[in-house]
Amino acid sequence: MNRQTLVAEIFRRKTFLCVGLDTLPARLPQPLQGRADGVVEFNRRIIDATRDLCIAYKPNLAFYEARGAEGWRDFEQTVQYIGSEHFIIADAKRGDIGNTSRLYAEAFFQHLSCDAVTVAPYMGADSVEPFLSFEGKWAIVLALTSNAGSADFQQQRLALEGALLWERVIGQARYWGTSENLMFVVGATHPEAFARVRALTPEHFLLVPGVGAQGGDLEAVCRYGLTRDCGLLVNASRSILYASSGKDFGEAARAEAQRLQQQMARLLETFTG
Amino acid sequence: MNRQTLVAEIFRRKTFLCVGLDTLPARLPQPLQGRADGVVEFNRRIIDATRDLCIAYKPNLAFYEARGAEGWRDFEQTVQYIGSEHFIIADAKRGDIGNTSRLYAEAFFQHLSCDAVTVAPYMGADSVEPFLSFEGKWAIVLALTSNAGSADFQQQRLALEGALLWERVIGQARYWGTSENLMFVVGATHPEAFARVRALTPEHFLLVPGVGAQGGDLEAVCRYGLTRDCGLLVNASRSILYASSGKDFGEAARAEAQRLQQQMARLLETFTG
Repeated sequence: MNRQTLVAEIFRRKTFLCVGLDTLPARLPQPLQGRADGVVEFNRRIIDATRDLCIAYKPNLAFYEARGAEGWRDFEQTVQYIGSEHFIIADAKRGDIGNTSRLYAEAFFQHLSCDAVTVAPYMGADSVEPFLSFEGKWAIVLALTSNAGSADFQQQRLALEGALLWERVIGQARYWGTSENLMFVVGATHPEAFARVRALTPEHFLLVPGVGAQGGDLEAVCRYGLTRDCGLLVNASRSILYASSGKDFGEAARAEAQRLQQQMARLLETFTG
Repeated sequence: MNRQTLVAEIFRRKTFLCVGLDTLPARLPQPLQGRADGVVEFNRRIIDATRDLCIAYKPNLAFYEARGAEGWRDFEQTVQYIGSEHFIIADAKRGDIGNTSRLYAEAFFQHLSCDAVTVAPYMGADSVEPFLSFEGKWAIVLALTSNAGSADFQQQRLALEGALLWERVIGQARYWGTSENLMFVVGATHPEAFARVRALTPEHFLLVPGVGAQGGDLEAVCRYGLTRDCGLLVNASRSILYASSGKDFGEAARAEAQRLQQQMARLLETFTG
């Protein structure tokens, strides 16, 4: 999905919600427990319950890989089921030397039809660029993540120009691609950082985890981060997937996604209307 | 494999060679081209040809993931074939928030019987620690990688104490684990850095890529990096796997591995004898 379509669909559906498909077999609702197709069936029902309320789906690879090839099969079937009407993010945090990153890009962009992959920037330009060479596909580079460990390196100040490391990541990586094929991850647990992010890059989309179970504040994120083109994909995972552990899990997921979508529709109107 | 066994086996076999199983279907030798089991059969024959000459095998996940679940099946079968006499490194460069890194660790340490996973440090302590909580298993944290992009962030100087970022990664991460469950990646393309690495950590093992196709110098690495316990696992991938593209690929791989092993035996004697 290219940027033009992404922006148009956000305003048409009035939502910039990304549903994180972080599906744990141990947390499947009772009716699906122990079924061989439990994870895929759960994902199908979550997807059916939320299609009109979100713009993106984001399966996190770790939740599938924990069961090896069998989990990867579930991941593949989930991506196929989502289809082409949503922006599909493989949340994989990959990144390696050039010839190797190229193979990761092939996995998600050619073998599968994901639109984007999350990428760790530690190895630098040549580790990210292979993800940027596929027409209509995106790299989403980690900048300032939502976890406590973001203080260890990302928030270290550099001697050069006194920038924090995550600021330099945005400052450098924005030249590796364009706002048509590159986004950044900025966690909702750092709402104060969004003004600084927008000073560094008014034009790039941001993928924002940390609303919901991790405690981030959607309104604060929008106040500083939302742009004329929206510019945000805000992810919620656990608060939607596990809204109910009973057989009403689909309805409960829909209710939580709808609550977020309605809040997003208001925020879109407030900040771009 | 714990540290004591690893060190003992290095000195018994007189080798600290790690064979990188970066197997590309397109580069399989002619007799295996187009076979459904081509990748696994190639790996089996490379493993059989090099077992007595190396201490470790390192499949790089990207080379398997590029073919999705089917590639993961090949990866699983390869790990099973290697068995327990070698140190198995899943070169996966993973790393995510704590609950997610935990699932990656389960994939490689519980679902499969790998000994170690390579981990990207950008997300900080809580993204690495889950890999350190499995008895007898190891996290291998990226410090200074072999590629040109290592200049972009890893070699940036921090305001704090004037350390380079990769030096701070070693300085911090060494307290997250011990020399019994934590190693660092330092590329052979930076031989001058090994003296600095050893000043920062005399005791941790280092995984050293970049000898062979990437041009690193084994002797320079050993002069500065080798310790009383060896302290090095030096990887070669392409120069062994693709030593011949004909049906003698096994013999050619063995000859190249033997050349490296004999050099390593001499270097072990020179620097620890």
